[in-house]
Amino acid sequence: MRGVVVTGHERAPLEQVDALAKYGVATVHEALGRVGFLGPRLRPVNRGSRIGGTAVTALCWPGDNLMIHVAVEQCGPGDILVVTTTSPSTDGMFGELFATSLQQRGVRGAIIDAGSRDSAELGEMGFPVWSAAISAQGTVKATPGSVNVPIVVGGQLIRPGDVILADDDGVMCVPREDVSRAIDAAQARSDKEEATRQAFRQGELGLDRYGMRATLDRLGVEYITADEYARRTGA
Amino acid sequence: MRGVVVTGHERAPLEQVDALAKYGVATVHEALGRVGFLGPRLRPVNRGSRIGGTAVTALCWPGDNLMIHVAVEQCGPGDILVVTTTSPSTDGMFGELFATSLQQRGVRGAIIDAGSRDSAELGEMGFPVWSAAISAQGTVKATPGSVNVPIVVGGQLIRPGDVILADDDGVMCVPREDVSRAIDAAQARSDKEEATRQAFRQGELGLDRYGMRATLDRLGVEYITADEYARRTGA
Amino acid sequence: MRGVVVTGHERAPLEQVDALAKYGVATVHEALGRVGFLGPRLRPVNRGSRIGGTAVTALCWPGDNLMIHVAVEQCGPGDILVVTTTSPSTDGMFGELFATSLQQRGVRGAIIDAGSRDSAELGEMGFPVWSAAISAQGTVKATPGSVNVPIVVGGQLIRPGDVILADDDGVMCVPREDVSRAIDAAQARSDKEEATRQAFRQGELGLDRYGMRATLDRLGVEYITADEYARRTGA
Amino acid sequence: MRGVVVTGHERAPLEQVDALAKYGVATVHEALGRVGFLGPRLRPVNRGSRIGGTAVTALCWPGDNLMIHVAVEQCGPGDILVVTTTSPSTDGMFGELFATSLQQRGVRGAIIDAGSRDSAELGEMGFPVWSAAISAQGTVKATPGSVNVPIVVGGQLIRPGDVILADDDGVMCVPREDVSRAIDAAQARSDKEEATRQAFRQGELGLDRYGMRATLDRLGVEYITADEYARRTGA
Amino acid sequence: MRGVVVTGHERAPLEQVDALAKYGVATVHEALGRVGFLGPRLRPVNRGSRIGGTAVTALCWPGDNLMIHVAVEQCGPGDILVVTTTSPSTDGMFGELFATSLQQRGVRGAIIDAGSRDSAELGEMGFPVWSAAISAQGTVKATPGSVNVPIVVGGQLIRPGDVILADDDGVMCVPREDVSRAIDAAQARSDKEEATRQAFRQGELGLDRYGMRATLDRLGVEYITADEYARRTGA
Amino acid sequence: MRGVVVTGHERAPLEQVDALAKYGVATVHEALGRVGFLGPRLRPVNRGSRIGGTAVTALCWPGDNLMIHVAVEQCGPGDILVVTTTSPSTDGMFGELFATSLQQRGVRGAIIDAGSRDSAELGEMGFPVWSAAISAQGTVKATPGSVNVPIVVGGQLIRPGDVILADDDGVMCVPREDVSRAIDAAQARSDKEEATRQAFRQGELGLDRYGMRATLDRLGVEYITADEYARRTGA
Repeated sequence: MRGVVVTGHERAPLEQVDALAKYGVATVHEALGRVGFLGPRLRPVNRGSRIGGTAVTALCWPGDNLMIHVAVEQCGPGDILVVTTTSPSTDGMFGELFATSLQQRGVRGAIIDAGSRDSAELGEMGFPVWSAAISAQGTVKATPGSVNVPIVVGGQLIRPGDVILADDDGVMCVPREDVSRAIDAAQARSDKEEATRQAFRQGELGLDRYGMRATLDRLGVEYITADEYARRTGA
Repeated sequence: MRGVVVTGHERAPLEQVDALAKYGVATVHEALGRVGFLGPRLRPVNRGSRIGGTAVTALCWPGDNLMIHVAVEQCGPGDILVVTTTSPSTDGMFGELFATSLQQRGVRGAIIDAGSRDSAELGEMGFPVWSAAISAQGTVKATPGSVNVPIVVGGQLIRPGDVILADDDGVMCVPREDVSRAIDAAQARSDKEEATRQAFRQGELGLDRYGMRATLDRLGVEYITADEYARRTGA
Repeated sequence: MRGVVVTGHERAPLEQVDALAKYGVATVHEALGRVGFLGPRLRPVNRGSRIGGTAVTALCWPGDNLMIHVAVEQCGPGDILVVTTTSPSTDGMFGELFATSLQQRGVRGAIIDAGSRDSAELGEMGFPVWSAAISAQGTVKATPGSVNVPIVVGGQLIRPGDVILADDDGVMCVPREDVSRAIDAAQARSDKEEATRQAFRQGELGLDRYGMRATLDRLGVEYITADEYARRTGA
Repeated sequence: MRGVVVTGHERAPLEQVDALAKYGVATVHEALGRVGFLGPRLRPVNRGSRIGGTAVTALCWPGDNLMIHVAVEQCGPGDILVVTTTSPSTDGMFGELFATSLQQRGVRGAIIDAGSRDSAELGEMGFPVWSAAISAQGTVKATPGSVNVPIVVGGQLIRPGDVILADDDGVMCVPREDVSRAIDAAQARSDKEEATRQAFRQGELGLDRYGMRATLDRLGVEYITADEYARRTGA
Repeated sequence: MRGVVVTGHERAPLEQVDALAKYGVATVHEALGRVGFLGPRLRPVNRGSRIGGTAVTALCWPGDNLMIHVAVEQCGPGDILVVTTTSPSTDGMFGELFATSLQQRGVRGAIIDAGSRDSAELGEMGFPVWSAAISAQGTVKATPGSVNVPIVVGGQLIRPGDVILADDDGVMCVPREDVSRAIDAAQARSDKEEATRQAFRQGELGLDRYGMRATLDRLGVEYITADEYARRTGA
Repeated sequence: MRGVVVTGHERAPLEQVDALAKYGVATVHEALGRVGFLGPRLRPVNRGSRIGGTAVTALCWPGDNLMIHVAVEQCGPGDILVVTTTSPSTDGMFGELFATSLQQRGVRGAIIDAGSRDSAELGEMGFPVWSAAISAQGTVKATPGSVNVPIVVGGQLIRPGDVILADDDGVMCVPREDVSRAIDAAQARSDKEEATRQAFRQGELGLDRYGMRATLDRLGVEYITADEYARRTGA
């Protein structure tokens, strides 16, 4: 099935999204068991944002942004537009005009698994974008694709209505069924991190705090002096 | 023919270059029919500059910046130095001392299809550089190359005297014969973008503004509900 | 030999490290004969730092940061933690909690030949990190490795106690035996650069200052006019 | 949910898989509307095989092949083992011993979205493998993963029991619900290709056979002479 | 200017092309002064061919092979089709049906700066193809491009009618004006290589044959014993 | 220290090298504890060789093969020439003439951490080469380097006289002190592999043979039915 625009999908509740977003990508990713991260290829066009929202997805042909125009109409307050292409592309398929339209509709940001452009203007208007490349190369509007179908970005399946979180560490996806659980897990993780932070500030070691010395023993890690090391390696 | 330094080439008129540069790379690239962009690999060493100038070209051996020294002498006010290597290289063949010499000659910036260094110093002295890498790795001065011959950077042919435009979206080349036409096209594109920007701010959709709904029909793009989609895919 | 933690290694004297660090990576790299640079892949997570310190090394399994915990205990004032993996990895194996622990111990920064995360927090706390990727992807603590054995990063051999220098141009390693010689060479290079800088500001050309015109002659580089070039190439 | 081994999944019927496999990857991919291809990164370790089978999936930690051992037990006649890692890896996690075990169980081949090794031995024993790298680098067995959960390889979602097709052009996945439709479409496509092949052998042009001349007109493609082109470009 | 098909271009004489092709890419590349090579990215789909011919060029949109259909009509005996895309692409835009059509017209091979498919079939029919990727991923026919305009592949400018040479070492372009000179230079180079080959077989060293010992002296290369080296490096 | 040619280094005994080489790269790499592999980037130019020998090393400037000429003189029977460059390069710095000279001297093969050329000729003459690229691009002879100093290739330190093993799975280095131990370990590993091979052929599972079921339990890996999985994920 190709060339469909799916309407009326379910979205994760925005109050839950907002509760989750404040923890940041790294913390939520850890809290959920190290799943959902879209990889290091997606970088913020301008650093310093931390956002969360519900995914509206667009699947485009490489070098063609027709379906982004279609997707804009499906976007509303609290959404984040997530775009990918059927083959890898770095073309600048998203820029300031799209951002203007999305911002007017209450959209919180865009994730472009290809290129974006108008970097300076996006920064000035405060519309956060994460993309795989920055490129002025323009695109055509000739080949159909789909909107609000499940897509894969950075090895992760993203369904419309899923939660997207993004900050300076990258982008992640939380399935909409897992948001409630994710908030609890993220709070627990955050509490644990804060306790660890305090302990580390006072000089406690991770080795002791996490009880790793026994693990090192079991794994046969051996402590030797530099002299002994030199002797063994003949250096 | 190898190892030549070509002198006395024609340059695009600076007043035209200046008129064109203000539109930015993405707008001029679109205005000319989506040609001339040097690809996403060339990034600003320090963000925030938008420049235009006339190309002085240098073709170097990888790991060797001898011909940049030769090229400096050929540079004058309004020029932009454009350097590439006969094979791909990331070595830091350009830095603050070259920038000092070029700045003294009225050169507006440098495009290095290899590595640059002295990133912090370049920022402090306000000399804008775009490069394919940032690298402290130094180079030798042993192998000849050419200055002011046509070179290829990012798949684009650049002849001495052509117009180079560069900003946070990357770098493009406009053939010197096309500058006059480019200014007109860029102004027209800019006017159109401004009108679109206003329309988008008031909520008009690209779908309507660009008359794309008929295109979608012709291409067979179908609107269906999420329920219907689930039914069709058996999910 | 695998799974060892080497203790009691010799370190380059900190006063020498400090004397060397101020020259910056590019200058020291040049001064030593263009050796020791770790390549353009390692980039600062947050720009604007220039540090020097003595290496504590950690060799980890990809996707596993167990040995970073072990390495922290071996770090002290003036050290820089240098981490690599047995196979290439971009996973975010280092973040703000490690930085907290290291900062408490007087460590000056970290070089992660893999991914780092908590980019914003690292910037806020002023702990400088250079890494090959920024990634929220977390790691496990399951597989042994070694601490304070010689490791290879970016094609350079780094032994514990060697000097690590890092700034916006990247990272380099100076063997601890060479520090004293490096300071002298860097000062000489710096003096020469300053003299050149002054000469360039007054319009002297590198061609003349470095006596390159004879070299160009020997290499057969020919100066011709644009008309002559057009004639020869038939353009 | 992590660390599960899912048993008793539904498989596409083998007689259908066999009927489909004979058409080859490129033909089936086209027949289904250009979907399902796993990208050019996966290459045959030894060329010359064309296989089809039902997917058994394994999701491993990078540098760790523990879950391949688990997956072997879940494999039976007609299956193809498909392995990926939670982060990109080129380590040689699959070799001749695994192939021996799988071959004994009637498995038809393996798709490794990481590295494979024992290239020569795999060729000698006639067990076809497609991988993203060839690497002797060995792996540990320390970190849990999952078997027979949906995984993503090359941007495509693969569920256990889906059909995997692989030949010298790469690897594709056909959802198990679509196999019957795929056979019909592939036969139709194959018939059409054969007719085209005959026509092309007799000199008919694609331009005429596919009626593209009108399309070119609509798109404004213009035929001009080389002289006219030279005149327009000022060359 | 976009969307043109240029007809009636001049071609290098086939008897000269044939005389040149027999020397192989590496020899001709060297003979001409190390210019014209299209880089290591273009690899033969099936090894073992060595061809030469005259370029017919096609410039396509990524993911779109419309203009290849147009280009086929412009191809005749002795031609080699050279295809690139306006942005990088690995999609399989060329396969066995195109090869059938081209073979019928006397075309000698194809260079695809993107992906090709039907690898096995291309081998069976004996139509040699060099491409940047092997991929079953299909393309559309929706966006215009140009045929027989100058294009850039692998950093080299290729004009219609120029000579293309390709073998297992890759692909190169010789401007049609230079063919005659290239034949002479290649013969001279080949003679020199044969003499060197004989000398090397009898044990003469390149150091002596090429008179490099003086060069090494001038460059300050020093011969020392392993003991002396150990002493100097403190190892 | 730069520009040295070190003579009279110690070599691992050839009878030991020969005893080790027959086990193949993957087996020796495993036997030694998964160390020494030079990574998947180095590939055989022609498949089907398995060699072992003692390293003669050459460190070249990118795009310059002067030091290979110097290294040839230092090579003798049983040696393998190992070449790298100070910065990454794909240029074809090694070809059939070098191979002729080396073959005449009893050298067993070459490892080129850059590009090689004359692929077909190398196959015909039976001289095995592993390289990071195949490229006709030629190089100059202008910049000094060193011969028989320790070099780094693929993250591994290689000292002159160390053992190099290479086959279709890639290349590895065994320090010359470890050869004797490596032979014993490789034989033990080979025996164990053979026993496992026989067991696997008879249907025993790795899970049982390696006692992994307890590990899976400890790691919390859970076996569930497809129905249960569907229930948990809400699919």
